[in-house]
Amino acid sequence: MKLGVCYYPEHWPETDWAHDARMMRAAGLSHVRIGEFAWSRLEPRRGAYDWAWLDKAIDGLSAAGLEVTLGTPTATPPKWLVDAHPDILPLDAHANPRKFGSRRHYCFSSRTYRAETGRIVEALARRYGAHPGVTMWQTDNEYGHHGSDESFSPDAVTAFRVWLEKRYTDILAVNAAWGTVFWSQVYNDFDEIDPPGATVTEANPSHRLDWRRFCSDQMCSYNQLQVDIIRRHSPGRPITHNFIGDFYRLDHRDISRSLDIAAWDSYPIGLLSESQAPTDQKARWLRAGEPDFAAFNHDVFRACAPRWAIMEQQPGPVNWATYNAAPAPGMVRVWTWEAFAHGADFVSYFRWRQAPFAQEQMHAGLLAPDRTPQPVLEEVRRVGRELECITHLQQDRADIAILLDYPSLWQHEIQPQGNRHGPLEPSRIAYGACRRLGLNVDIVFSDTSLDGYKIVLLPSVPVLTEEICSALRSSGALVFATALTGSRTPDGKIPPGLPPGLLAHAFDVRVEQIETLPDFEPVEVLIDEKVLRGERWREMITTGSEVRARFADGKPAWVRNGRFQYAGFWPGEGLMTELIGRLCDEAGLARRDVGRDLRLRRAGDIQFAFNYGPGWQDLRQIGAPPGAAGYLIGGADLAPFDIAAWHCGPEIS
Amino acid sequence: MKLGVCYYPEHWPETDWAHDARMMRAAGLSHVRIGEFAWSRLEPRRGAYDWAWLDKAIDGLSAAGLEVTLGTPTATPPKWLVDAHPDILPLDAHANPRKFGSRRHYCFSSRTYRAETGRIVEALARRYGAHPGVTMWQTDNEYGHHGSDESFSPDAVTAFRVWLEKRYTDILAVNAAWGTVFWSQVYNDFDEIDPPGATVTEANPSHRLDWRRFCSDQMCSYNQLQVDIIRRHSPGRPITHNFIGDFYRLDHRDISRSLDIAAWDSYPIGLLSESQAPTDQKARWLRAGEPDFAAFNHDVFRACAPRWAIMEQQPGPVNWATYNAAPAPGMVRVWTWEAFAHGADFVSYFRWRQAPFAQEQMHAGLLAPDRTPQPVLEEVRRVGRELECITHLQQDRADIAILLDYPSLWQHEIQPQGNRHGPLEPSRIAYGACRRLGLNVDIVFSDTSLDGYKIVLLPSVPVLTEEICSALRSSGALVFATALTGSRTPDGKIPPGLPPGLLAHAFDVRVEQIETLPDFEPVEVLIDEKVLRGERWREMITTGSEVRARFADGKPAWVRNGRFQYAGFWPGEGLMTELIGRLCDEAGLARRDVGRDLRLRRAGDIQFAFNYGPGWQDLRQIGAPPGAAGYLIGGADLAPFDIAAWHCGPEIS
Amino acid sequence: MKLGVCYYPEHWPETDWAHDARMMRAAGLSHVRIGEFAWSRLEPRRGAYDWAWLDKAIDGLSAAGLEVTLGTPTATPPKWLVDAHPDILPLDAHANPRKFGSRRHYCFSSRTYRAETGRIVEALARRYGAHPGVTMWQTDNEYGHHGSDESFSPDAVTAFRVWLEKRYTDILAVNAAWGTVFWSQVYNDFDEIDPPGATVTEANPSHRLDWRRFCSDQMCSYNQLQVDIIRRHSPGRPITHNFIGDFYRLDHRDISRSLDIAAWDSYPIGLLSESQAPTDQKARWLRAGEPDFAAFNHDVFRACAPRWAIMEQQPGPVNWATYNAAPAPGMVRVWTWEAFAHGADFVSYFRWRQAPFAQEQMHAGLLAPDRTPQPVLEEVRRVGRELECITHLQQDRADIAILLDYPSLWQHEIQPQGNRHGPLEPSRIAYGACRRLGLNVDIVFSDTSLDGYKIVLLPSVPVLTEEICSALRSSGALVFATALTGSRTPDGKIPPGLPPGLLAHAFDVRVEQIETLPDFEPVEVLIDEKVLRGERWREMITTGSEVRARFADGKPAWVRNGRFQYAGFWPGEGLMTELIGRLCDEAGLARRDVGRDLRLRRAGDIQFAFNYGPGWQDLRQIGAPPGAAGYLIGGADLAPFDIAAWHCGPEIS
Repeated sequence: MKLGVCYYPEHWPETDWAHDARMMRAAGLSHVRIGEFAWSRLEPRRGAYDWAWLDKAIDGLSAAGLEVTLGTPTATPPKWLVDAHPDILPLDAHANPRKFGSRRHYCFSSRTYRAETGRIVEALARRYGAHPGVTMWQTDNEYGHHGSDESFSPDAVTAFRVWLEKRYTDILAVNAAWGTVFWSQVYNDFDEIDPPGATVTEANPSHRLDWRRFCSDQMCSYNQLQVDIIRRHSPGRPITHNFIGDFYRLDHRDISRSLDIAAWDSYPIGLLSESQAPTDQKARWLRAGEPDFAAFNHDVFRACAPRWAIMEQQPGPVNWATYNAAPAPGMVRVWTWEAFAHGADFVSYFRWRQAPFAQEQMHAGLLAPDRTPQPVLEEVRRVGRELECITHLQQDRADIAILLDYPSLWQHEIQPQGNRHGPLEPSRIAYGACRRLGLNVDIVFSDTSLDGYKIVLLPSVPVLTEEICSALRSSGALVFATALTGSRTPDGKIPPGLPPGLLAHAFDVRVEQIETLPDFEPVEVLIDEKVLRGERWREMITTGSEVRARFADGKPAWVRNGRFQYAGFWPGEGLMTELIGRLCDEAGLARRDVGRDLRLRRAGDIQFAFNYGPGWQDLRQIGAPPGAAGYLIGGADLAPFDIAAWHCGPEIS
Repeated sequence: MKLGVCYYPEHWPETDWAHDARMMRAAGLSHVRIGEFAWSRLEPRRGAYDWAWLDKAIDGLSAAGLEVTLGTPTATPPKWLVDAHPDILPLDAHANPRKFGSRRHYCFSSRTYRAETGRIVEALARRYGAHPGVTMWQTDNEYGHHGSDESFSPDAVTAFRVWLEKRYTDILAVNAAWGTVFWSQVYNDFDEIDPPGATVTEANPSHRLDWRRFCSDQMCSYNQLQVDIIRRHSPGRPITHNFIGDFYRLDHRDISRSLDIAAWDSYPIGLLSESQAPTDQKARWLRAGEPDFAAFNHDVFRACAPRWAIMEQQPGPVNWATYNAAPAPGMVRVWTWEAFAHGADFVSYFRWRQAPFAQEQMHAGLLAPDRTPQPVLEEVRRVGRELECITHLQQDRADIAILLDYPSLWQHEIQPQGNRHGPLEPSRIAYGACRRLGLNVDIVFSDTSLDGYKIVLLPSVPVLTEEICSALRSSGALVFATALTGSRTPDGKIPPGLPPGLLAHAFDVRVEQIETLPDFEPVEVLIDEKVLRGERWREMITTGSEVRARFADGKPAWVRNGRFQYAGFWPGEGLMTELIGRLCDEAGLARRDVGRDLRLRRAGDIQFAFNYGPGWQDLRQIGAPPGAAGYLIGGADLAPFDIAAWHCGPEIS
Repeated sequence: MKLGVCYYPEHWPETDWAHDARMMRAAGLSHVRIGEFAWSRLEPRRGAYDWAWLDKAIDGLSAAGLEVTLGTPTATPPKWLVDAHPDILPLDAHANPRKFGSRRHYCFSSRTYRAETGRIVEALARRYGAHPGVTMWQTDNEYGHHGSDESFSPDAVTAFRVWLEKRYTDILAVNAAWGTVFWSQVYNDFDEIDPPGATVTEANPSHRLDWRRFCSDQMCSYNQLQVDIIRRHSPGRPITHNFIGDFYRLDHRDISRSLDIAAWDSYPIGLLSESQAPTDQKARWLRAGEPDFAAFNHDVFRACAPRWAIMEQQPGPVNWATYNAAPAPGMVRVWTWEAFAHGADFVSYFRWRQAPFAQEQMHAGLLAPDRTPQPVLEEVRRVGRELECITHLQQDRADIAILLDYPSLWQHEIQPQGNRHGPLEPSRIAYGACRRLGLNVDIVFSDTSLDGYKIVLLPSVPVLTEEICSALRSSGALVFATALTGSRTPDGKIPPGLPPGLLAHAFDVRVEQIETLPDFEPVEVLIDEKVLRGERWREMITTGSEVRARFADGKPAWVRNGRFQYAGFWPGEGLMTELIGRLCDEAGLARRDVGRDLRLRRAGDIQFAFNYGPGWQDLRQIGAPPGAAGYLIGGADLAPFDIAAWHCGPEIS
């Protein structure tokens, strides 16, 4: 568990570098990421490399005792390269180029750009691959951000056709998979197929689903290109990439296979501002971030790769959201500990010193533009000191798991059907409900082993593969799914035996019709003579098994067939918490409602409590030690925006 | 009065066809529409026609006793055709093509596409024109949907210039008609004129009005092209087209002259979701549709052609709206009977079996994707049985008529002036007010005879022609107009003697100024010492005749000159109902407020009542028979989402 | 102080002209503006000039005793010119042309269009420059309207590069000024630089700031081109331009250096409708316009040039807003007098007679389309009579000044940071607060002398130059600044010593961090033990001077260092009024809260009162004479939408 920081020596006079390095060490930082975005400094003109400044920077940081993570600069090709090869620019669906002047202005399919990428990464890896100070590599920066996952360039069109031919071999198979007989969409040849875009009305959903797969795959193969070069020149150094949070266009599980560490960039306040959360939530957690936002992403990336980390941690107000509040004093420490409690390898702050120029001039750093330390630096130092007491945190398998599936997220994007807050919402709400009940949660993918889970949740996961279904059948876990689960084949079609498709037999459920409902029409569900309110989806179900709840008209709403339970509606946040609570009871899982602001995380035999709210929390009520003795950090009275940690027994009592 | 269904044999294995046909017959269906959208199956490669499957399909359906309506497949040109002739694609105002991948991806002005249309329609009509099983033809599918009425292609530009030259002969006449002296818009030649689009600020309204006329005319001439071919090869078979509801960009009256039957596609729930209706209305009629939506369109299309019908009737949740609720049980039957009560020739459901693939996979059919019958099939069967009791419904001229004028609707689009819910809103609100008062209503066009009407309503109809004005003057009806009526010449200019232009003398009104008002500023109108609230428009009127109501400042608001009455404001829904009630009393028309949910329709001596609401209705209160004896369908206590029909005297008492 | 009108003889039959002129004179009008937009009538075909009609029009108007202001017609190049030279069209960021069909369809950088402009202006000025009836010239019409300030044409790209080279000489200086080391944005050559547009994510803010400077400069040099020609042919005649109100993309102070009179077009009702004002304000002043809108613009343009005027005064409902209410009876007179009270040279109404055709057919004139006088004409006549009593109004320097700085407005646009209602909002709110306190206000620019002001307000003015800072330091005035002031260098960077940069020493303030807050998060400020509410910005300040108010957490919120006071928050409307009230007390300035609807303006020893509200105002309460004797206009009881004027002493008591 290490602390790090993102640093741009090229932004500052050389004379500042040594002092900066000393300050970093003094603050308890041991890692520093540099280099990404520096292409125009590394190669000011084609082939005229300038390594001198970077040599000096790396040597100086190393000399000060800092480990360097070196980023490849491919997220920002320089202007001379764009002008020489305008074909590297991404094109929108109308063939308009997305131009130079910010970042991520390249098309993942551009053959020219892949060659240029190989050239610069090769040069960089060759020069620094064996440098003892460079202990980690980062490829590029935030793949897919700003809609850059998608490009309609001629190279992308060609690559998509090649990709389709590889997937389907025969054009007849494409026609069958996409149902092109509908609306005369039949293709006679792979060369007739274009990306779905700029159509008169909606494009074919299966076509779109394959386009999403292709776009994600292009990012993977582009990353692989970089990884292969780096491994050749820098064997033994871990390679990472800094992913963006709450992003679903890139299959993080898939791309992480090529990485040693899956890192992500955590901006809890900025992303809450930009989210579609209701105003009362935005107000409540204005300065703390939504309590489950970061944890959810932690658990996603923890499931992606053997190691995971935070590459960029928000340290103060950012520049890019609609409004940019300062974190509450204490929150940066809370976020840092929440990450470590979830198993983060390191937490690296973005950025060392606020730049007084260019796009991110209003993005806070640990230091003000004039190098005055911000108060947050003291929080960082405090975490550093606390890390001396807690040197290791074990990550055990949780009792409850949530299935996350990227093709299912794409399916939600393509046919949202009243999924009003985006593809990740159902997973996020299920996750939040578990956290509300004080539980550790694992995210699982369709290729993850399910052994040992007591409960596996399928929060409206439309696309099921045989792989996951057989894992579910043989897992021994209580399996709970909500509406739409299994409603699509991997091709994006309604399954032959009707939803929930491959699990229809396991659930003993047939969904004959689905309606999608507006905000103002709740779905009334009668459970144990109480009327509860679901929302959004209502399914017309037939079943031969036990009906645990019915809709107002008496039709089955919640069905149990042994370990398999299916709800033909979307519970929303409140009802989801209630339902998972009941499932916990059935599965013999201790749980207690910890309220909106308090969050728990158990790591081995250490229990953490995090307070995201403005009020005090009495931890005795959740069974924490009454006296100061038992605590590694804090005590039983948990202040706002503070944490506590203590040794605990095998269960929360 | 027949029942039909839309069917896509090409979507299903041949082995299913015979069984499907039998099921249709068993359900009481006698008509089946097929073939539209099937171009890529009919001609998989250029000139390589494949008739075999369609032969078999038609033969099989006929053999089962079903009459086949055959659709031309021109709404979906196949990819090989688009690739060979990209000039068939419509272009937007920036010359971006609207691409292949959904439907309606052709430009009505494309000379290539007209030739290709001729070719495929000729081939189809030649092959099936004399087939005894084909008893009706449908041209294309939903002209103008998805903004496809408009294209800025080079062919469209040329055609627009030719159209203008034909209309005006002399370029000086264009300049005069459009007032191009304003802002130096003068043209020296027809070849200088472009379609109005992508201008720096608003384009010339007269230019835009002619562009709307042109776009509508292009659809008409394109349809005529198909009709001419079909009539040549299939004489004696009626030809129809399935129009979309609540659409105003196409002059339905004009295009219907070439058709035998004007059909439309009725989706009461989907269109309410997409409408700008307030949330309380969307909630109230979530599962029933707005009670006047379908009826209004019925009466529009009834006025367009000698016969009219429903080609596509929503049978369950659809896929394309923001949310897609299931109809309340019973509503599909109610909609069907509402259509027959208005004189529909047939009602055809869309679609037989839900497709598990492609764009409309979430669109319900009478059968689920796995061919299980949905509960709605029983409703269809019930209508079939009821049709055995009611075999004929006479359609008499109503006492009250509403003038609908397409150039006026375009004028509303071009200069909305606070007409917040679209061009059709004034007509729709006037229509709803009449229905609220229990009245049958006729829609009339400017070329319809007005003989026999007691009241003719002009709900803010800006463009008046001499034709309609002389009909109004000689009609003997009480004529009531609201603000903006007569405010434009057919060229889109303010008439020389000020509004209401050609009717200024009849109304004895001069409108010297018009203000348009926001939602939050009501227009106070004093009628008989009561303050009532209009909205949106307030006109400064001078008159020498009787002032029936005044604005708060004492100026004339409602003026009567003999049979002619003019209101210089927009009454909105509530006040419109009150005003029409008063007009009825003056014209000797019985009326009674039937509330929000109940709707009546009289056909000959049969009175229908439809309940669109969730509560019971006591029909005795509107003079229906107290006992069960008098009813053809239902009884005096009308359940939610149910209908009743009874023989009645000459008037509702 | 004269009254005028805008007139389009080319819109009407020649036979109407003489009568129109006589009516104008009879209404008390002495000025008439003509000719702008008439290019296609002046030169129907290239080089074929038609002067005859204009000769006749000018001669006739002169003969009737009207002074003619002649407008150059360059805002509307005719179609034959556009077709011959499509390169004159402006292009959007995707290179789509903004097409012919409305107005302002030219690119300020087009070399072709500058040549064509020279040609037509030369021809016009040569013909009428010495005409005795032409007493004033207007260049073009409403520079920059409809986004026309910006074009991405090849000529614009080239001109931008030339402009940059002139500004920076060396490409290294550009890189330094813009901080291009960030995200590899380094340029090796001026020819590599494009305008900022169509980037993948946000463009460099310094780049954007220079682009705004360039776009404004292009309008200035384009105007200079016209002015130079006119001065050559028409020496001694004043030249003006009619600017749009509430517009900030053009540096009005800069462009006005070439003009004799800065005129603007005042549409108080239309612009309130289109503004982002809250609904209650839009409702309250629906028919009066926001009480400070026109006055603010008056004071801006008064500060721009030696003389200023209203070229277009709204006379009734306009056509272009979302809704277009009629002004309350009396308001046109109130607006006219408000302008004169602020020193207007003349007020010219737009337009004489409503045109029954083309885009502005719904824009009211003094006359209806059929030439009936509207009631407003009587208001105009009344002003004319009143002008016989008040023939001169002295404009003294105010006691309080507000600094307006165009680069600062652009900076607000580029990084709005929660400035929710646009760049001008802080200035407008400060101005409104002063008016609420009954004060005369001067707008000052960074090159205006500050001598004699008691208070100078810097309402969140980010970009400070040394010029203005030294003027502030030496002025003797109490200087009050709010958050963000001094937060940027002229290059758009955070200043080296942190904000407020050049004034950090004067204020004794260092702003270490800024957060931007949403609507729902007020900024609590404790002043004299009262909790007051700021909004939007909260700064983390350090200071060694007096802290006048603190934030809820005890940190400095309002700081005083001698004459210099700084508030690290945005007060909003209410708190700003309170703060300025306290400043007035400290500076010895009499003030009194005049409420929301009443507004005052003192001109020399004449005091005006304007009632923008629907209730009566008792002027005795603000010290006006109790009896009728003292009044030049009106009396102590001020009716709604009415004015009063009286001789007064040196101070409002």
